[in-house]
Amino acid sequence: MKTHLGAKNCLFPIPTTLVGALVNGKPNYLTVAYVGIVDNDVISVSLGKKQYTAVGIKEHGVFSVNIPPAGLVAETDYCGMVSGKKADKSTVFTNFYGALEAAPMIEECAINMACRVIQTLELDEHFAFIGKVVETYCDDACVVDGRVDFACVQPFFYAPDKDYFALGERFAQAWHAGKAVKERRGGE
Amino acid sequence: MKTHLGAKNCLFPIPTTLVGALVNGKPNYLTVAYVGIVDNDVISVSLGKKQYTAVGIKEHGVFSVNIPPAGLVAETDYCGMVSGKKADKSTVFTNFYGALEAAPMIEECAINMACRVIQTLELDEHFAFIGKVVETYCDDACVVDGRVDFACVQPFFYAPDKDYFALGERFAQAWHAGKAVKERRGGE
Repeated sequence: MKTHLGAKNCLFPIPTTLVGALVNGKPNYLTVAYVGIVDNDVISVSLGKKQYTAVGIKEHGVFSVNIPPAGLVAETDYCGMVSGKKADKSTVFTNFYGALEAAPMIEECAINMACRVIQTLELDEHFAFIGKVVETYCDDACVVDGRVDFACVQPFFYAPDKDYFALGERFAQAWHAGKAVKERRGGE
Repeated sequence: MKTHLGAKNCLFPIPTTLVGALVNGKPNYLTVAYVGIVDNDVISVSLGKKQYTAVGIKEHGVFSVNIPPAGLVAETDYCGMVSGKKADKSTVFTNFYGALEAAPMIEECAINMACRVIQTLELDEHFAFIGKVVETYCDDACVVDGRVDFACVQPFFYAPDKDYFALGERFAQAWHAGKAVKERRGGE
């Protein structure tokens, strides 16, 4: 049987990211789990309309998405608890810059994406910044035969209103696991 | 050291969903990992422009998002391998209907969200359907004290171009794990 939950977003657990921007001339990072993929090289990040980081993204039209490893859960959670208005988050991590000079990135995160805003949606509670990935950086150790080993990246996932989940095991192969069903049911 | 990967989307692993729509009068489900959260009760799903399911979403302005458990990986993968143009996917699962009559949902998935399209973005390769959640359904067994137990839902995650990952353990508490860092570094 099903319980009716009302209009409740349950697209969780979802990857936890650190979104970076230059705000008042300094790197700032916000913990963001309202993220998604909208096209092959386009992602969205949604920030509360009054977030300090949103000011920087609006000013420069660029941002970074950094995927923190489970080992940085304390620092990541901290970046979601404290506003850049009240605390200097520019020294929490080692900053580096790549293709976009106003998109600071985090050395300690295995994956970093420098993104340029191509569209901004204004929702009730959030701005959704739709960003085209301009350049992606990955720790050498997590690149195997030119491909990213996501198990090596050790991302973690957020679920409301208090859980961080680790990544589990690879347990099946995409574009393959369904073959037996296809043979049974047909289709091309 | 960092490897430069070009403009590569690395927001993975990301939840694997089954997006449902009524197409030519029949329920159809497509495996979609290009998903995201854009506001508290708003999610996005991106479908290839020629996808059969996209036709149904455009016609009716509604869709469902169903979160398949790891135990349905074969059926889920199948729904991504085979087009509704070529195979009848209306009998793969047990269909049910809720708040939106053109948004068929899957009984075997612990989470189902009936969504109404509020905006459609046309990207290079995909349509991004931005949907407001109208009603959410959850298996009774996965509701604990009125909240969803996402470990019970057993979602799984996709990473290109061939991996399905399981959900790992709860390993930290959000809005809490960062407290020690906050005490050390300050901030409100």
